[in-house]
Amino acid sequence: MPHNTQQLHGCSLVAGAPATPEGGVNEFAAIDPARGEPLPPSFFEVSESLLEQAATAANEAQLVLSETKPETRAALLRQIAEGLEQLGDALIERCGAETALPAARLENERGRTVKQLRMFADLVEEGSWVDARIDRALPDRTPAPKPDLRRVLVPIGPVAVFGASNFPLAFSVAGGDTAAALAAGNPVVVKAHPSHPGTSELVGEVIRAAVARLGLPGGAFSMLHGAGTQVGAALVGRPEIQAVAFTGSLSGGRALFDIAAARPQPIPVFAEMGSTNPVFVLPGALRARGSEIAHGLAASATLGTGQFCTQPGVVFVPQAPERDDWIEECARAITAQSCSAMLTPQIAAAFEDAAARIEASPGVTRLGITPATPETTPNNLGSPQSGSGSVPTGAMPLGGARAFRTDLETYLSTPLLRSEVFGPCTIFVTLETDAELLKAAAAIGGQLTATVHGDPAELTQHRELNAILAGSVGRLIFNGVPTGVEVCSAMQHGGPYPATTAPQFTSVGTAAIERFVRPVCYQDMPQELLPVELRDDNPRGILRQVDGVYTRAAVEP
Amino acid sequence: MPHNTQQLHGCSLVAGAPATPEGGVNEFAAIDPARGEPLPPSFFEVSESLLEQAATAANEAQLVLSETKPETRAALLRQIAEGLEQLGDALIERCGAETALPAARLENERGRTVKQLRMFADLVEEGSWVDARIDRALPDRTPAPKPDLRRVLVPIGPVAVFGASNFPLAFSVAGGDTAAALAAGNPVVVKAHPSHPGTSELVGEVIRAAVARLGLPGGAFSMLHGAGTQVGAALVGRPEIQAVAFTGSLSGGRALFDIAAARPQPIPVFAEMGSTNPVFVLPGALRARGSEIAHGLAASATLGTGQFCTQPGVVFVPQAPERDDWIEECARAITAQSCSAMLTPQIAAAFEDAAARIEASPGVTRLGITPATPETTPNNLGSPQSGSGSVPTGAMPLGGARAFRTDLETYLSTPLLRSEVFGPCTIFVTLETDAELLKAAAAIGGQLTATVHGDPAELTQHRELNAILAGSVGRLIFNGVPTGVEVCSAMQHGGPYPATTAPQFTSVGTAAIERFVRPVCYQDMPQELLPVELRDDNPRGILRQVDGVYTRAAVEP
Repeated sequence: MPHNTQQLHGCSLVAGAPATPEGGVNEFAAIDPARGEPLPPSFFEVSESLLEQAATAANEAQLVLSETKPETRAALLRQIAEGLEQLGDALIERCGAETALPAARLENERGRTVKQLRMFADLVEEGSWVDARIDRALPDRTPAPKPDLRRVLVPIGPVAVFGASNFPLAFSVAGGDTAAALAAGNPVVVKAHPSHPGTSELVGEVIRAAVARLGLPGGAFSMLHGAGTQVGAALVGRPEIQAVAFTGSLSGGRALFDIAAARPQPIPVFAEMGSTNPVFVLPGALRARGSEIAHGLAASATLGTGQFCTQPGVVFVPQAPERDDWIEECARAITAQSCSAMLTPQIAAAFEDAAARIEASPGVTRLGITPATPETTPNNLGSPQSGSGSVPTGAMPLGGARAFRTDLETYLSTPLLRSEVFGPCTIFVTLETDAELLKAAAAIGGQLTATVHGDPAELTQHRELNAILAGSVGRLIFNGVPTGVEVCSAMQHGGPYPATTAPQFTSVGTAAIERFVRPVCYQDMPQELLPVELRDDNPRGILRQVDGVYTRAAVEP
Repeated sequence: MPHNTQQLHGCSLVAGAPATPEGGVNEFAAIDPARGEPLPPSFFEVSESLLEQAATAANEAQLVLSETKPETRAALLRQIAEGLEQLGDALIERCGAETALPAARLENERGRTVKQLRMFADLVEEGSWVDARIDRALPDRTPAPKPDLRRVLVPIGPVAVFGASNFPLAFSVAGGDTAAALAAGNPVVVKAHPSHPGTSELVGEVIRAAVARLGLPGGAFSMLHGAGTQVGAALVGRPEIQAVAFTGSLSGGRALFDIAAARPQPIPVFAEMGSTNPVFVLPGALRARGSEIAHGLAASATLGTGQFCTQPGVVFVPQAPERDDWIEECARAITAQSCSAMLTPQIAAAFEDAAARIEASPGVTRLGITPATPETTPNNLGSPQSGSGSVPTGAMPLGGARAFRTDLETYLSTPLLRSEVFGPCTIFVTLETDAELLKAAAAIGGQLTATVHGDPAELTQHRELNAILAGSVGRLIFNGVPTGVEVCSAMQHGGPYPATTAPQFTSVGTAAIERFVRPVCYQDMPQELLPVELRDDNPRGILRQVDGVYTRAAVEP
């Protein structure tokens, strides 16, 4: 039976049950960002002792979970997906109230979330992802015999997952990180994002019920509430936690990384921290498809009020006769987009602040239409406590989407321009020579994506540009837009720092499961004790390396 | 023509040439550990400006290297292997003088080193290791078309490799880390270990010549000398370096990890820092094969004077009638082994110090034969500068190999007993109940290996023991010894911290290449610009995932 908003209990879920809050804990409420008003009920910040209980229970669940069959893990993921669908409109309504995201977008995001869960269910059922490797014994080898060696990926241990404000479903409680960690056989402790605690509770209860229904230990899943950074910091510091997944700001991700690196036992932190997602528009493409590119770019830059980590924040435009007109066309298209309320009043205030500082930056010109309400200064936005929080536009980008223009020298010498602005803001940087084009490419730093628009001959001619960009990004896009991250086996959503803290991994797609496993090699282990994936007869029929050769065949004893 | 010891120049190799030392730099010499005397010539510590040159040149070489064909990389690795073989006895002699390792061991280690180089050459030529993934476009998909996405592993960037004292060939200048990093297409900057600088120069010159012969940029390989920790620390701090590989002590590895984590751009550190490699001997095995196990264990514990990261440092023995006699038999076998000089006087001094502290620890009993020279105190060992360094036994473990006995409570409550002692020292821990057996297993912490001796019925009965151990180790061995790390596709040489700083990776075997790559996804990239591994026609015939299905077939356009 669907759990609805009236029933929200406001408690953390600790090892299989809502945890009765202890006296004296902080309470907080979700804020409706469209109206700047708190939403009932109150949520209780988890206490230190409950946090410890969650971590301890996760640790205790580890052994059982690591020995679950792939079918059990797949059933768990599919039951969670089904449970999310069964929540129906209650989920979309609560989530919409907490995030100001439109119902259509949230329905879409729910679709993606259940798709991710089912994708990992399929992956673990197929089974070849465990990268099984068998090197057979050579008992007669001289000077020393070779033992039998068999290697497989095993779960890494309890994973701390941080919900993201901008993906309340797909990167939060039952999002891609949780799905991948559970698929790999790990207990998960989620730190719910305080901007959508009700959504988190609805989703967390679905996972809790699925865990119970499958007879798995309650410690397999906990979900903790906390309004500030303290609960998350304490969670990452718990010795039971073996890996951390985070999607959010550079400052937040780096803080968690630093805590994890300073532990007596350092642990990996898979933090996806956003990007400026540079776009390069070559002259031939500009000439041939200028308007099409302009309108695609404007839609991408303002989609979801620009609140995507792949939002194109900077566009490099080489010398071309049509350039000035084209940049104006882009700017008009961007600033003409209507903006919805942003995810939180704090995000809206940070956006206005950054945009104002860019506008005031020497060598930068603001482009596009005049904002509708120029008399409203960004400072009026404040925090929800500031008194002005109850105006309907409490989390609205008051000046609308922004477009700016500058030259390469100014861009390169102004750190402010090179940092991600979370929201609908795009800076156009003009380039005068081919040398400047390569200089810009070499200077972009670690990015989730870069995009190149060019006609076929131009792209071939700029082979070096592509190679330089590929050296800095997780995904290189041709004649497209960076927003829209496909959930599939070939996706790479990641990139060198500061895009992420773990450039060797992805947070989207089937390869995301690799974050939560580590290899173990068994030497001369008796057949009947081996993990099923490593047995001679290959009962799961998975693809393996046998003596270095890929095969699904059984091993001759 | 082979380079011989008389020609040693003592210089760092910076971007393709021996670097003329600047005035005022530190000089140091290798010490012959068997005699405690310095060996000519002097080696020049690299200056900060030369170090910067090496890092800059590596960065500049990155683009060219990343675009080399697999055949070129394979040729480079094979030429290095051949060059090492051509050094002939000159290499073995210099290496023996610097390390006190016997010629037979060094010839064996050279064999392993060239095997590793050729293994990676074969791996990159076969090519499937790049984990190519293709998801074809669905232009007619609704509501939005799916783009064409293709993902492949690309080189991570300049790699800093630290030579290890205990593997002057296989884990030093042309060792497994360098081989894997070059195979992946990265420039390498080696910090040569100061205990074998002449060996490092001989090997470094081979790599330098091979790089030049293939017409690759000189920045593809540099090798830096430094007597202390300063050069290595500065190298890891250079912004050009993108990954670090290290084999050595916990304190050394952790120091580099901390430097790397504190950089403005944190980078991964693959530090393999050793282990106590616990051994569990179950009663049935003890009864059936006690003597065989005892002698295998003693040989493994004292092999190479115990200077292996997989040396078995602790043995857990449950209650059994034969137990006391068996432990005595082991201890006699261990302490009867003759010890060679250790790798450096510092290592010998540290060993004597740790062994003396263990012996003085309450609840611990020393076992086995009386040492031959009890009147010589460990303090006489000193450092090579201390005046006693010139005695022939300057780096000898004066008390010989050690064996100790204690109970679980003492073991668990004494951190000294749980830390790795680098050298021939093994502690026997008696267990009284099955509960103590599981408690011991749960307490071992991160380890490179654990070993279980048991008869078939016993192993099945102790399934939980195996599962607990697998949760803490990189490799789990049955009825064997932990020393002897096979170089093959199924090897996992790694493990949870403190065994390594990167439990998701291995430093031995083909999978070691995964440390030095990261994935990049190309979206809608024109065929002719794609890396060859991602093209429709699959010209290299590698195994790929196409729409999530493994195949070597070409993709239908």
